Amino acid sequence: MIIVMKQNASEENVEHLIKVIHGKGLETHLSTGKQVTIIGVVGDKSQLTYDNLEIFEGVDKIVPVTESYKLSSKKFHPEPTTIKVKNASIGPGTLTIIAGPCAVETEEQLMSIAKAVKKAGASIVRGGAYKPRTSPYSFQGLEEAGLRYMKEASEETGLATICEVVSLDAINTAVKYVDMIQIGARNMQNFFLLKEAGKSGLPVVLKRGLAATIDEWLNAAEYIISEGNPHVILCERGIRTFETSTRNTLDLSAIPVLRSKTHFPIIVDPSHATGVRDYVPSLAKAGIAVGADGLMIEVHNDPENSMSDGPQSLTFQQFEELTKELAPYSSLVGRAFGI
Amino acid sequence: MIIVMKQNASEENVEHLIKVIHGKGLETHLSTGKQVTIIGVVGDKSQLTYDNLEIFEGVDKIVPVTESYKLSSKKFHPEPTTIKVKNASIGPGTLTIIAGPCAVETEEQLMSIAKAVKKAGASIVRGGAYKPRTSPYSFQGLEEAGLRYMKEASEETGLATICEVVSLDAINTAVKYVDMIQIGARNMQNFFLLKEAGKSGLPVVLKRGLAATIDEWLNAAEYIISEGNPHVILCERGIRTFETSTRNTLDLSAIPVLRSKTHFPIIVDPSHATGVRDYVPSLAKAGIAVGADGLMIEVHNDPENSMSDGPQSLTFQQFEELTKELAPYSSLVGRAFGI
Amino acid sequence: MIIVMKQNASEENVEHLIKVIHGKGLETHLSTGKQVTIIGVVGDKSQLTYDNLEIFEGVDKIVPVTESYKLSSKKFHPEPTTIKVKNASIGPGTLTIIAGPCAVETEEQLMSIAKAVKKAGASIVRGGAYKPRTSPYSFQGLEEAGLRYMKEASEETGLATICEVVSLDAINTAVKYVDMIQIGARNMQNFFLLKEAGKSGLPVVLKRGLAATIDEWLNAAEYIISEGNPHVILCERGIRTFETSTRNTLDLSAIPVLRSKTHFPIIVDPSHATGVRDYVPSLAKAGIAVGADGLMIEVHNDPENSMSDGPQSLTFQQFEELTKELAPYSSLVGRAFGI
Amino acid sequence: MIIVMKQNASEENVEHLIKVIHGKGLETHLSTGKQVTIIGVVGDKSQLTYDNLEIFEGVDKIVPVTESYKLSSKKFHPEPTTIKVKNASIGPGTLTIIAGPCAVETEEQLMSIAKAVKKAGASIVRGGAYKPRTSPYSFQGLEEAGLRYMKEASEETGLATICEVVSLDAINTAVKYVDMIQIGARNMQNFFLLKEAGKSGLPVVLKRGLAATIDEWLNAAEYIISEGNPHVILCERGIRTFETSTRNTLDLSAIPVLRSKTHFPIIVDPSHATGVRDYVPSLAKAGIAVGADGLMIEVHNDPENSMSDGPQSLTFQQFEELTKELAPYSSLVGRAFGI
Repeated sequence: MIIVMKQNASEENVEHLIKVIHGKGLETHLSTGKQVTIIGVVGDKSQLTYDNLEIFEGVDKIVPVTESYKLSSKKFHPEPTTIKVKNASIGPGTLTIIAGPCAVETEEQLMSIAKAVKKAGASIVRGGAYKPRTSPYSFQGLEEAGLRYMKEASEETGLATICEVVSLDAINTAVKYVDMIQIGARNMQNFFLLKEAGKSGLPVVLKRGLAATIDEWLNAAEYIISEGNPHVILCERGIRTFETSTRNTLDLSAIPVLRSKTHFPIIVDPSHATGVRDYVPSLAKAGIAVGADGLMIEVHNDPENSMSDGPQSLTFQQFEELTKELAPYSSLVGRAFGI
Repeated sequence: MIIVMKQNASEENVEHLIKVIHGKGLETHLSTGKQVTIIGVVGDKSQLTYDNLEIFEGVDKIVPVTESYKLSSKKFHPEPTTIKVKNASIGPGTLTIIAGPCAVETEEQLMSIAKAVKKAGASIVRGGAYKPRTSPYSFQGLEEAGLRYMKEASEETGLATICEVVSLDAINTAVKYVDMIQIGARNMQNFFLLKEAGKSGLPVVLKRGLAATIDEWLNAAEYIISEGNPHVILCERGIRTFETSTRNTLDLSAIPVLRSKTHFPIIVDPSHATGVRDYVPSLAKAGIAVGADGLMIEVHNDPENSMSDGPQSLTFQQFEELTKELAPYSSLVGRAFGI
Repeated sequence: MIIVMKQNASEENVEHLIKVIHGKGLETHLSTGKQVTIIGVVGDKSQLTYDNLEIFEGVDKIVPVTESYKLSSKKFHPEPTTIKVKNASIGPGTLTIIAGPCAVETEEQLMSIAKAVKKAGASIVRGGAYKPRTSPYSFQGLEEAGLRYMKEASEETGLATICEVVSLDAINTAVKYVDMIQIGARNMQNFFLLKEAGKSGLPVVLKRGLAATIDEWLNAAEYIISEGNPHVILCERGIRTFETSTRNTLDLSAIPVLRSKTHFPIIVDPSHATGVRDYVPSLAKAGIAVGADGLMIEVHNDPENSMSDGPQSLTFQQFEELTKELAPYSSLVGRAFGI
Repeated sequence: MIIVMKQNASEENVEHLIKVIHGKGLETHLSTGKQVTIIGVVGDKSQLTYDNLEIFEGVDKIVPVTESYKLSSKKFHPEPTTIKVKNASIGPGTLTIIAGPCAVETEEQLMSIAKAVKKAGASIVRGGAYKPRTSPYSFQGLEEAGLRYMKEASEETGLATICEVVSLDAINTAVKYVDMIQIGARNMQNFFLLKEAGKSGLPVVLKRGLAATIDEWLNAAEYIISEGNPHVILCERGIRTFETSTRNTLDLSAIPVLRSKTHFPIIVDPSHATGVRDYVPSLAKAGIAVGADGLMIEVHNDPENSMSDGPQSLTFQQFEELTKELAPYSSLVGRAFGI
């Protein structure tokens, strides 16, 4: 931590501050420049939690130099993490495809989609049973019934399953039926939910918040892993920008940035990022090229009549064509495709 | 709802679409231009929920012309709502001051602050017992003990009390101790929590999300009121922008915009918006001048040693000076001050 | 300047870096922590301009601790600047009103507006002769003819005049006709134009860019003052955010922030910020309450038929009512109104 | 154009509006719903330029349904445009590499870089002679001398050349020395400069503004083409977001969106987008995968001592390795590489 003093800070200001810091058992390094004085603080900064150094007389600003997340950081865990769920493996060497409808609608719908995406190369089927919707008057999901259909689809196809959770109650129900859970963008800083997801022990796909920085995202992941659950997968699904021709803006540069900071696997969701079916294939390819460990893609048996997010869903045929096109990109980056 | 067709849409495309819409019992008005054809849809649009008109052949875009919120809208409730809690009244004709620490720390701390803010003109005391923090290693609040101190402070001073909630469990506990609850910015689209806040029946201060539009905010309010709880107060507390010299950017234009769209009372929180104590007084004045019904201001007995958000907290003396300066602004806008 | 080293940086990395810095005649202070090593650099940093310290082996990041602007900074010029133009004075103790149409349309139009805004309390008349428009097919302004009408309006009313410039040619023409020039938001980082505005010697109203930080804005002002022209007025006119119910979001917290960083006068333009006439009055009041030195407000003789930005323009009557309402706010902040 | 009336609009309001529109020779289609009345306007909307329909009594909002750009639109020019400069071809079937230093520093520097990038597969060499810099105290470029070195490098290597222009004077000088000009992000809405670039007749690379939408970008391009110059190349170079670990956020979804709207070639600049050398290779690959016609990459003989943007520049060896890695991606998308 670095403390930058104001230009007009007095010697007394500096001395008082140093005394407080030393009183907590930390060391300081003083650097006195022509214009500004800087105090470097060395040691266990958690001792300073309740001291608001910013408002001590003469302080201009505090510059942190270490991240607040630990277990999520590559510094403390240099090797990339691989997460195995049923036959799927998410991590180095594989390119994992998660596919399925935005929302589970009926037993038949989900079963037909699960079979179709398996055939085309997916190893995990997704489907929402608890839908966070902007308006209370939109379809909110089938809840437990939806989860039951997921379990049936898994038993029939052997695919692993994933479903979004939005409350402790949803987690407790999901644990009974699915293999992985997802925390959605709007709940990325629902810290209560993150802790409960951590306690569940299930692998957690953590989507990036609409306006979240990468540091905030990794701090959110830290809530999960600090409960003893290291099975976290980060999913880039677009951030909010001023552009309106896509629903959000897919931030593919986040993938190499995350790779330099964390050991967690990273996947890309071009369907939610764009909200437009026609843009999904080219961004899926780009996602592989930039180094993602997997893709999450929306597929629907009848997009025109889907209950949620139809415009971004691929038909079975479109999805099958897409996976054929993706395979050579997967080879180029040295990953086994669709496992 | 207006459907804009693509330039190259065929007559068949248009006819098919109109047939689908008529099939749901809605009416259409066709407008054929040189470049584009437009279909106006009239009637109960909820009949179209599961039809994804955007992906019908030939459709360019869908333009909604009515808001998705109803009970929150001024159209359905033209008179401004006044919310009464103990001796406080939030709505037309009064300028209500909510003040207190970011986090409840000890019984003595809260009691001394409650007395000080009451003396200076506040009618509601705030204090966090469940703190949503970016990092899991930061102070997370005293939970039920903090709420108990709130109740004691209320009994001693007669002030109404408000506390943020972050989970169903927190709501169930808060109901026993405090007069109002708050949904924080990070939980503005935690729809599960919004519904539970609605069911609680307590007045709810709903803070605006960091990247939320006013429409999304009003849809979030709709989740509360649609559970039968009309006691919603909207709190502008700054949105995320590229500016870094303030923590967030206080959007004061939101106040006249909200006033034109909703009947709910509106308050302004300059403390969280700026994160800097020195900027609070001028923005509090601006908040009154622009038409807010009240202010939420952080006050602490010892900001240098507060457990959370010290840099933005006012001392007792600063708060007392501020309320004296605010009173004439309140008179100018025709509001009784500090009630 | 502070150099934060990577966790795995070697002693050789640190030594090499220090040697390079010393070689430029600067001093270093080394601070070796458990996790990271920090090098504080003291002295004339311009010696390091062509050294890209960020890519030296072992460097994690560079943290600047002083601003890059000098002449614009309050540190080097603590007293607030007052700018006098004809009978108008912009600075401490006065609340200056600049008013007029978005675009100059005809001689009669401008003359009638100039008389009306003078009567209501404005001391400077504005009017665009060179209009930066998103589409090349929109009205682009009367150019020199418009400036001539400005001069006539000034001669008739005694008001000072201001007009936006968009090119060197426009500056050279404006110098002949008007008292002040304006650099618009889209040109805030048109550095060539800023330098030429500096050379013109005329007072310059510098509007904030749509996505500009306060630091970038002050660096833009530095381009003007570093050409020897200290007559700069900063105009907050709204920044781009995700909110669409106003054209931009007026950042009123920028006023106290700027006041702490620079000596330049600061004005607020609620008309361009909101784009909606109904929101102008309440934000004008808030602008005064927060401490602005003046306001820029659009007024038009016939908003329904104006060539540009009619929806945000006030009629003569609305403007007159507004100035009457603003006067007591001006008194509250201790400023003489309309001088 | 669609006019949405307020809920409480009177029949007189609607009739008055329709009369005004008919008076301009346009047609209307009226659609009267339970909640709102909508007026569709058909015909040449330019007749309404000076009518501010938004402020007519009873109007809620105006929804445009056609774009304001014409010549840039795919609707009016369905075939993709190919731009040929010397031996380079930018458009369908080729993957063009533009490479070179951020700033031209010396004759020798530029010559050595030109030879190196040619050898590795680039067909156009870039180099800045007029540098738009945030601070007036940063290096501003060699101006005409820099352009002269560009010409020499072109004569020696046969490569086409491109240089950014920032003023009319710079354009007039550039025309004498280089093959293409570039309008930078900060000048994307410097409409004066866009028109002059259009008049120059040279191919223009138009970079996207930091906070520009795709529609604003295409309207900026329209300024160039409407001066009779159809040789426009759009360059995505990152937009400003809240993420700080990259300088900007490369918006790769812009490529398929642009492809659906315009016929101009599209290139991607991962160097300026990220500002970090290590992130350039993976994003370059993603740029090809997503469908770009070319890449612009910064290469420097000695990044540690470059005068501008060293941290994002590749060394000769890194660039050569990168082009080898890019070639198979180019094959996958069916483009001849490095022509």
